[in-house]
Parts: sequence; structure tokens; C-alpha cells
Amino acid sequence: MKRIAILGSTGTIGVQALEVLSHLDTYEVVALAAGRNVERLAEQVRRHRPKIVGVADEESGRRLRELLREEKVDIVVGDDGLVACAAYPSDVVLNAVVGARGILPALAAVGRGARLALANKECLVAAGDLILRAMRDAGAEIVPVDSEHCALHQCLRSGRAEEVARLVLTASGGPFRTWPRERMAEITVRDALRHPNWSMGQKITIDSATMMNKGLEVIEAHHLFGVPYDKIAVLVHPESIVHSMVEFVDGSMVAQLATADMRLPIQYAITYPARTGAPWPRLDLASVGALHFEEPDLNKFPCLRLAVEAGRSGGIAPCVLNAANEVAVDAFLRERIPFLRIPEVVAAVLERIPNETPQSVDDILRADGQARRLAEDYVAKGG
Amino acid sequence: MKRIAILGSTGTIGVQALEVLSHLDTYEVVALAAGRNVERLAEQVRRHRPKIVGVADEESGRRLRELLREEKVDIVVGDDGLVACAAYPSDVVLNAVVGARGILPALAAVGRGARLALANKECLVAAGDLILRAMRDAGAEIVPVDSEHCALHQCLRSGRAEEVARLVLTASGGPFRTWPRERMAEITVRDALRHPNWSMGQKITIDSATMMNKGLEVIEAHHLFGVPYDKIAVLVHPESIVHSMVEFVDGSMVAQLATADMRLPIQYAITYPARTGAPWPRLDLASVGALHFEEPDLNKFPCLRLAVEAGRSGGIAPCVLNAANEVAVDAFLRERIPFLRIPEVVAAVLERIPNETPQSVDDILRADGQARRLAEDYVAKGG
Repeated sequence: MKRIAILGSTGTIGVQALEVLSHLDTYEVVALAAGRNVERLAEQVRRHRPKIVGVADEESGRRLRELLREEKVDIVVGDDGLVACAAYPSDVVLNAVVGARGILPALAAVGRGARLALANKECLVAAGDLILRAMRDAGAEIVPVDSEHCALHQCLRSGRAEEVARLVLTASGGPFRTWPRERMAEITVRDALRHPNWSMGQKITIDSATMMNKGLEVIEAHHLFGVPYDKIAVLVHPESIVHSMVEFVDGSMVAQLATADMRLPIQYAITYPARTGAPWPRLDLASVGALHFEEPDLNKFPCLRLAVEAGRSGGIAPCVLNAANEVAVDAFLRERIPFLRIPEVVAAVLERIPNETPQSVDDILRADGQARRLAEDYVAKGG
Repeated sequence: MKRIAILGSTGTIGVQALEVLSHLDTYEVVALAAGRNVERLAEQVRRHRPKIVGVADEESGRRLRELLREEKVDIVVGDDGLVACAAYPSDVVLNAVVGARGILPALAAVGRGARLALANKECLVAAGDLILRAMRDAGAEIVPVDSEHCALHQCLRSGRAEEVARLVLTASGGPFRTWPRERMAEITVRDALRHPNWSMGQKITIDSATMMNKGLEVIEAHHLFGVPYDKIAVLVHPESIVHSMVEFVDGSMVAQLATADMRLPIQYAITYPARTGAPWPRLDLASVGALHFEEPDLNKFPCLRLAVEAGRSGGIAPCVLNAANEVAVDAFLRERIPFLRIPEVVAAVLERIPNETPQSVDDILRADGQARRLAEDYVAKGG
């Protein structure tokens, strides 16, 4: 039996991960962590019987303890609790926490040599250099859960690292791919949450609509695979069947295709290097009929450009970009700002914080906090 | 420097192989073999200075010796000469001979432990079990040059052999994919030689038009990758960009994509496991725009069904199928039989020769000869 910790267990990825584990009978859940959805978390604890459980705050901790009076389980709270769940002895830590909260548990997991199955791209965006260094120092490994990076991970097996000419990340283009630019001022929260191919959490669905998500994925790919930015391209592929591709120096492109089902990358990240059978439906390309490809429109989707530029700048810029984006997306979801204001908030915050090279995770967290405050001001003042 | 022999050097694949070698500066051509195109062969000898050269017959040998009076090179003739070229010490033998003539040199190459870069699929179709056994006994390896099998070879690197659920060979569908069945009686040689995507030799171009080529490739894939027939599928893909795919047990499909350029698989087969840079154009999927997929129509293309059935039967059936097809295609190219008669000739010959398990290459060659005579009779009598 291998031991696994699932951080973000009540979210979309966490719930699917537990579903995957139900047909993989060689894994034991030793830690679960969630935010405030204590009812669902309590059910998960009763079924999987972890040793340690984390929740967002004291109040959620009290409620969970109430629900689990009969169970023998350690309940821990807050960011420290989340880190304790990642630090608890296990073979695999699935980090499916949303946003920059994922940084500290990612460091805790790789720091003790565990495999990090990574669904939280923000931690690599904000603190990629630090996390990769900790991973190498401890001889740990990171296997991505994002469908695009899981695809790249699979395609990269077809050649050597030095034979890679280009990574090509595919993007659905989101719900506004075919909208004329003029109409984009009218976009409502409901429009933006209507993703054509994937059913995901709210944050990532909005990031897909702005294409910020693809920009964050470019930065994530840069860190995960050690490929420079000028060798990472984005290609719009509305069907989301080809999840990404690697072009090798000989002109060969290797692509990974599958139905849009996150259970596949979740399972791959857990069982790699093995692949195991799975109950989900197979891709039937003859039924799909056609796959389309087009260049992304950077004028319509400035978030993509902003993210790649921040990635190239390095230092704290990607962390600042990510923090400002989290605040802006939250403000859009609460209908405090319109859709087109999201890239404006991000650009304004990036402009006001001078870039620097972070020496430690404290520098990252400080930049993250500063960017959030500035973004919040910008949102509040409508500036 | 590595040493390479090129059999079929004046054909489409041979000429492109020499072009590939011109930018790979670590290979030395030690043997060349061709049929009767002695002028072109003489030029190749002057440029590449091999130690041994093979031609089809005594007459061609005399003409070549005349052209190469000044050169110090061994000239050998006939099937024995071809085998001598394969047996000549080298690291790689590129077998691009057309048809069942490729069997003996394939055996000679793998029998002495050389890498066989295999463009001659007919030898695996006719004598797959024998050649694979010789390969294993000598610790040799076969790397396919066919674009589909080269694609599969690359995709298979993304998992373990026991994790393969299915090989999916793509097929352009040839020039008659969209023709109504009724019109297929009128097909001329010119129609059939007009392949939509690839410029190839005449034999393989007709095989593509009947889809016999795809059936032969199914048999070839079965031998090369040790995958049973019920796990090998054919999918029509008119653009010939996705060259084939592997579906793994977890539902992941890994595909290889590239422009339709045989230099890529030729180079891959020579340099594997390394990939090297190359001067040919890169695939631009945004320019291609769309990739289409559909199920093959086995009623319109009975050769595909015949080949897969012969493969499943095993024994000498694939050898008989291949020999009858070579005669039928030749007869079609000489306008002795119409296009739709090709599968009829093949089916009739398969019916008349009782299947058996060949014990040696002699059994194979005997079955091959018998099938050719029967096919020739069938063509001559218009029966």
C-alpha cells in the first residue's frame, strides 16, 4: 500500500481524486485537507479514515470536530494545518489547493522527498524557482495534474530533454474565442462561467475565459520542464482533445489526446511511471470528426500576454501577476468589476511593484501580500 | 563514424536516405544496391564511395562496371548480390527494396546483429515470424521507416509494452476515399497514381489507392510491436498529418504528427534513440487548420479486409496475399486488369492455396512463387 495526502479534497480535483482512488486499490489516504466545506469533508473522513485532517480556520475545525465525535482523527487548522497535512508521512501529496495558499504545502511535500502530484499551478507560478530547488535538493519529483502538463509529461517520454525544440500548449480559447472584441465589455459572470469543454472550479474557469490560465500554464511548463520561454508556444484548439504537444528537433511532434476528463491526469500523476486501466470512456476520434487549430488572439486576451511577459521577467513578477489576478477574478465573480477590468488590475499592479529576485519564500509571500493589497485598492477605488 | 548499407538506393526512399545522410556527418555509406537504374547508381557510387554495390542482373552489372571503370568498388549482381550487400559489415542496413525481394537481405541484416531500418514492409508481411526470430536470436533491432510505424515507435516510448490498449494506424484513404462505389469500375492508372498527400513509388501508391497498403501495415505492426490483431485499428485521416497513435490502458492516446516527408522517419530509423536537427520544414498546425477522422469503408476497400484476415490466419496466408497483390498491382499498372480486379485476384489466390505454417524461409519463398504463378494465371486467363 502507498500512502497519499489530498489537499483540497472537497474541490473538483479532490473529489475526482478520491473517485480515482476507489478503483486503485493500492493507495491509502492518510491526510485530507479542505477549506470550509466541513459536511463533505466529514463524509470523506468517514469513508477514507485518514490520520490527519486540515480545515481553513478554527470555526471550521470546531464544526468538523462536532461532526466527527466518534472518529479517531487529528484535526488541524489554517495554513499551519495545511502544511502539517503535506508534511505528514506519505508517498504522494496531491496538491489541489486553489491559489497561492498552495505554496507552503508544496514546499513541505517536496522538501521531505514525497512525490508532488500538482494541480495547484499558482505555487509554481509564484515560487517556481524555490520549489524546484527544494525538489532537486530532496530528490523529490513533481508530476503535474493539469491536463496540458500531464500531456507534455507523456509526450516528453518520446525523446531526450536536449532534443526538445518546442512545447506547444493547447488552449480551448474559452467561451469568448468567437466573440467579437466589441461585445467583450458586456460579459457577465454567467457568460464567463460557461466553459465549452471542462467543468472546473470557478477561479480556473474565469482564468480560462481571460486566457490567464494559459499564461500561468506557460510559466508552470517553464518550471516543470526547464524549457525557456521562447520555446513554449500556445495554440488554440477549441475541442480540447489534443491536450498539448512536444515538437522535437527532428520536426516530429508528439501529442497526447483524450476526452476532457481530469480523472486521467489525476491517475497518471499518482501512478506514474505505471499506467493502469480505468473505467472512464475512451476517445473516439471518428465520432469527434474534426480537430481545429488556430493562433491565439493576444489583443482579445491581454492576460495571456501579461503572464508570459511576467514569466520572462522572472523574479517576483509572476507572483505579483498571480496575486493581482486572484484578487481581480474574485472581484469579477462578486460583480465588483467588469470582465475587461481583470487585465487592467493585473497590469496596474505589475507596473507599481518593482521587480526583484526573491531570496526566500518570505520574500514571495511578502510580494504576494503587497500585490493583493494594491489590487484590492485598485478594485475598491475603481481606479 | 557509423557504417550504413542502403538497399534500393535509386528508389524514392533510397534517394531521400542519401539526402538525409548528407546532413548527418557521422555516417559512412559502405554498400549500395539498386535494380537496373545504373546511371543513377553510378552517380551515387561516385559521390558516396561504397565498398560494395549490387544491381539486379548480369546485364546491369556489365553496364555499371563500364560506367565505373575508374572506381575501386566490388560489383555484385542478383539476389545473391543483394544479400551480399546486406551481409557486408555495417551498423545499419536500410532495406528499401520493393516487394518480397526484401526478405533475404532483411534476414542477412538482422542475422548478423545489425540494425535493420525497414522500409520494405513486404518482408515482415511474408516472413514476419522468421525475421523477428532471427532478430531476437542475434540481439538485433528493427526500426521501421514507414511513417505510420515510425509514429507508433515514437508513441510507444510514452508507456510500457503491457500498458498498450490499442495501436491506431491512420490512413489517408487514398485518392478514391470520396469516390462513390459505382464510379470505382472506371478507375484508370493515372487516377490511381494521384495520391493526395505523398509522392511515393508506383507499387505503394497503388497499394494506397486500394488500401492494401494499410492492411500490409497492420500485419507489419503486429510483427514489429508484438500486438495482437484485435488491438490494431485503422482510422482514416485524409490530411496525413497524424501518422499514427497508441492508446494506452488508462485511455490516454499518444500521437505523432509531422508534415508528409519521408526524410523524417528515414532519419529517425537511422539515428534512434537519438533525434537530430534537420533542414525540412516544420508542421504548422494553425495553417493546416483542421484534422479530420473517419472510419474506413471496408466495402469500398476489400483489400484492407483481405489483408487483416490473412494476418489473423497467419502461416503462409500473408505471404500469399502479398505475392498475389504484387502480381495484380503490376498487371493493373500495365493495364492488363481493371482496378477492381486487384482484390479479386488476391482473394482467388488465397482461396486456392491451403494455409500451412512455414518452417523455413524456403517454405516462404515456395509459397511466394506458387502464389505468383497462380495470380499470373488468373490475370492471363482473365478468370
